[in-house]
Amino acid sequence: MNSGLGLTPNLVRKRVADLRASMERAALDAYVVPSSDPHMSEYLPARWQGRAWLSGFTGSVGTLVVTATFAGLWVDSRYWQQAERQLADTGIALMKVLRGEAASWQDWLGDTLDRGARVGIDGTVASVKLLRGLKEILDGSGVQLCTSLDLLDTVWAGRPPLPSEPVREHRQPYATVTRAEKIAAVRQEMKTKGVDWHAISALDDIAWLFNLRGADIDFNPVFVGHALIGQEQVVLFLESAKLCAGIYQTLTADGVSVDDYGNFWNALSTLSRDSAVLIDPRRISWEAYTRLPDGVRVVEGLNPTTLSKAVKTDAEIAHVRDAMVQDGLALVEFLCWLDDALKSGRVTELDIDERLTECRAKRPGFVSRSFQTIAGFNGNGAMPHYTASPEAHAVINGDGLLLIDSGGQYEGGTTDITRVVPVGELTDEHKRDFTLVLKGMIALSRAWFPRGVRSPWLDVIARAPMWAAGVDFGHGTGHGVGYFLNVHEGPQVIAYSAPAEPSTTMLPGMITSNEPGLYREGKWGVRIENLVVCVEEGITEFGEFLGFETLTLCPIDTRCVDVSLLERGEIDWLNSYHRAVSDRLCPLLDERSLGWLRERTLPI
Amino acid sequence: MNSGLGLTPNLVRKRVADLRASMERAALDAYVVPSSDPHMSEYLPARWQGRAWLSGFTGSVGTLVVTATFAGLWVDSRYWQQAERQLADTGIALMKVLRGEAASWQDWLGDTLDRGARVGIDGTVASVKLLRGLKEILDGSGVQLCTSLDLLDTVWAGRPPLPSEPVREHRQPYATVTRAEKIAAVRQEMKTKGVDWHAISALDDIAWLFNLRGADIDFNPVFVGHALIGQEQVVLFLESAKLCAGIYQTLTADGVSVDDYGNFWNALSTLSRDSAVLIDPRRISWEAYTRLPDGVRVVEGLNPTTLSKAVKTDAEIAHVRDAMVQDGLALVEFLCWLDDALKSGRVTELDIDERLTECRAKRPGFVSRSFQTIAGFNGNGAMPHYTASPEAHAVINGDGLLLIDSGGQYEGGTTDITRVVPVGELTDEHKRDFTLVLKGMIALSRAWFPRGVRSPWLDVIARAPMWAAGVDFGHGTGHGVGYFLNVHEGPQVIAYSAPAEPSTTMLPGMITSNEPGLYREGKWGVRIENLVVCVEEGITEFGEFLGFETLTLCPIDTRCVDVSLLERGEIDWLNSYHRAVSDRLCPLLDERSLGWLRERTLPI
Repeated sequence: MNSGLGLTPNLVRKRVADLRASMERAALDAYVVPSSDPHMSEYLPARWQGRAWLSGFTGSVGTLVVTATFAGLWVDSRYWQQAERQLADTGIALMKVLRGEAASWQDWLGDTLDRGARVGIDGTVASVKLLRGLKEILDGSGVQLCTSLDLLDTVWAGRPPLPSEPVREHRQPYATVTRAEKIAAVRQEMKTKGVDWHAISALDDIAWLFNLRGADIDFNPVFVGHALIGQEQVVLFLESAKLCAGIYQTLTADGVSVDDYGNFWNALSTLSRDSAVLIDPRRISWEAYTRLPDGVRVVEGLNPTTLSKAVKTDAEIAHVRDAMVQDGLALVEFLCWLDDALKSGRVTELDIDERLTECRAKRPGFVSRSFQTIAGFNGNGAMPHYTASPEAHAVINGDGLLLIDSGGQYEGGTTDITRVVPVGELTDEHKRDFTLVLKGMIALSRAWFPRGVRSPWLDVIARAPMWAAGVDFGHGTGHGVGYFLNVHEGPQVIAYSAPAEPSTTMLPGMITSNEPGLYREGKWGVRIENLVVCVEEGITEFGEFLGFETLTLCPIDTRCVDVSLLERGEIDWLNSYHRAVSDRLCPLLDERSLGWLRERTLPI
Repeated sequence: MNSGLGLTPNLVRKRVADLRASMERAALDAYVVPSSDPHMSEYLPARWQGRAWLSGFTGSVGTLVVTATFAGLWVDSRYWQQAERQLADTGIALMKVLRGEAASWQDWLGDTLDRGARVGIDGTVASVKLLRGLKEILDGSGVQLCTSLDLLDTVWAGRPPLPSEPVREHRQPYATVTRAEKIAAVRQEMKTKGVDWHAISALDDIAWLFNLRGADIDFNPVFVGHALIGQEQVVLFLESAKLCAGIYQTLTADGVSVDDYGNFWNALSTLSRDSAVLIDPRRISWEAYTRLPDGVRVVEGLNPTTLSKAVKTDAEIAHVRDAMVQDGLALVEFLCWLDDALKSGRVTELDIDERLTECRAKRPGFVSRSFQTIAGFNGNGAMPHYTASPEAHAVINGDGLLLIDSGGQYEGGTTDITRVVPVGELTDEHKRDFTLVLKGMIALSRAWFPRGVRSPWLDVIARAPMWAAGVDFGHGTGHGVGYFLNVHEGPQVIAYSAPAEPSTTMLPGMITSNEPGLYREGKWGVRIENLVVCVEEGITEFGEFLGFETLTLCPIDTRCVDVSLLERGEIDWLNSYHRAVSDRLCPLLDERSLGWLRERTLPI
């Protein structure tokens, strides 16, 4: 049994029973606990990890629904294996969400509950978009929605308080655009849209806009806060103890005033009734929306910061290239050690994270890991979001594939890389799977596409060579990556299951992961991931074409490749990539790592 | 000057002036003439070719907007060159519609007209979806929409009457499912959707449902009519003179009653107020929708016939394979003649259609062409929908590429094929362009994809190898094809600009064209088109995979290929295709054609 949080099934049953008692007092027939916070974050501060606290399921996404007689957790395919383990004997059913059926728990509520039933969900941790959709479904079934109760508060003794880590400046040269320039650009966009105010709750947008960074959330260098921007004033809502006097002064100098975190709601309530407010319905809470006075004109759209943040400046990309050299040096040191260690001693999945983080920590500019390292040997590697724990992890011996997905936060960029390391003897099937994933990864790496193409479409380019061999994978091929910010950011997303909205258009300067995978349950997993930046490739009489420059610098293990499955162009790409890795890293390596890298970057 | 209809610019100016006078009498500030009829047909009976009659532009799609001071025709990129020629000196501006901006004339009206202005459009020839979108835009600008006036009637002296061609049965064995079975299936689907009535105006859906065929529209074997289906009755609205007694009897035997074409509107007006009606808002007119009494519950969705018609039965696919043999024999005879004729004599673009149609007409089961043959030499081939006319056509001599896009209607299927024939000496650039298109065509031909993939996504598979070389094209890669029905049918469409709705999911049995292209304005055009049927390829642990079986049997001219640009797998596909063509056709050819085909199907 691995509950991730050390919860026993009995403890989970007790917590769910407490929630049911609380639901009964509030006259609620169902209660929904999403994986969310007032900022629609992916990684949650401890205070808002209520779904994990209740259920023991520690995956990053999942929705818990509890009624008097049923408890179920809706989870997408990435987490099915993990959830099955963590929910065993808890009385909570695993509800599998299939691709393209994201709304299934909402439908379940609409289908299952009687007319007149009452569903509760905390409106401060659910987006406008989510609750609008839920309300429509429940309205259709005559079910009421109550968004004003946070029942977690009633059952969670010792619930963690608001995080209080200090905030720091993201300084030049790494911050390549000043705070004042960024605020001016947002105001310009607000004028274009004809709004007086713009409310932002998304933590990475806020950190980016103010050139501030925090440590309230593991791996994501953001801090908990909200922002309200007008043409004359800017208010940053956060616990003031987080700010040192120096930062307070620079904020004041840039015209930014600071108010208590909790005053955000009141500030929205007191906006003038004849004003117009821009919000992003996916990235702001239902509570924020309902606080706006009647009469306020609500304009909905992407936060301007979301797009500006996604399109990196040339100076930022230059810093990322430098960070990639540092990250590459750390990885080479680690992989060289790993090859030796696998031959000579006992290595566990847990050692991987420890040693790899040590190697990264030595590199200049390193701040922290950018997410929990995934090191999965054989069957564990088949769980795309597996995390080894002290209670449950594998010793790496015998034959097979070791999948390592890791990343670092550097002052000058965020990294995210997956490599697969051969252990012992590989079979033809191992190599075929590895090579099929490699073909998908190379296809996207080499792709050109017309300016204007929406990023979800590009997913098909990576998948086509894999589909041709009858294999597929249940996650997207690529996500946007922040600049010393969240390792997952939008609006671009290379996933054909995502809605191909205009805002997802791939633009030069966007940094995205390229990470097709292939998972054989119980056997092994393959994923190969580089970060790429979208670049202008050329203009022909057919228009302007964009493509990708690969940023990640680390060899792809050719011992896993079945060369007979590669076309000439694919081999050329791989050899040329390895030449680039070798050219950039070799001059900076010590003797031992140098020998290893030379061998690992030999042409095939 | 080539106006297509023999219109002089002055005549166009007079007609537009007459329309303006009529607009003034009706107090309209703008009038819109779409390319449509009461059935949302693509090919229009003469009576509804008002846009062509007014403007002289003969392309299949285009919207004319006339105000007191402006006249403009909105046309997509397929027709820009043709429209530029046909609109010259008429005073009608060519308004270029870019991909993904289909709504531009609507926006233009909203942006240009003053508040309180009145826009007219004939509601009987505009879909619910179109007018709903237009109304929303105009409402936002305070502009009124008037849908009750057909101003063409006031200005078009000698406007053609309703077409009156006889209707005939589509008999067994070619009709593989009986009329009664089809009606029963529609009723079952109506029960599932909880509706009492289903109104159909789409002519191909009606022809399919009743196993009837007509000749009211060039190339499309359909007849003008509407249908109203209930659980107890089925009414077919058409001019009864079109029906012989025998068909009338079989209809009656199947419980189908016949009413006058014009009574469709009244039938809708008199439906019970507590009934529910299923309509497809894209394939029924605004007029039909507004005729429904208040209180009627309208359920919107794809006509069940549209999906059933698209998924061909195994027996239908077997007939199509036979039709492809006949079509292939006709094409081989023609191409063999053409090769000789180009060497020895004077061939014009017009000769192509004549000779090719002669060759097809000899084949058993042939009924008519399935669309106007496109034969474009060099610069003319760069216009994807070019039509040679007696007034304007090229003599095929010198060096270059001749593009021929043609098709036939057979009792057992509809064909559509494009081939490019080399004329004289080809340059490396000719061959590169041809080969890039071939790569796109082959990529889609060989593709596997998981069941559930929506057809628009598949477009990227064909385009990726072309994008990689910095080339692209402005039309979709594939359209659905009817079974002895319209050469263009839905719901599937391989075009990434199309909305990837669930209804577009590619299903086994769907017949679709595979026709990437490449057009160099003023120089030449390349398009290579086969019809393919979606088939089940296999089931792996990653799910069920679908792919395509190529149906078209005709060599792809290897004299145009630059083999150095092809990967091994692409060469294998081409050789294997040519072997299949040779195996199927050779046993049925005379000596002369046999020699030609043997040479043209030699492996490269």
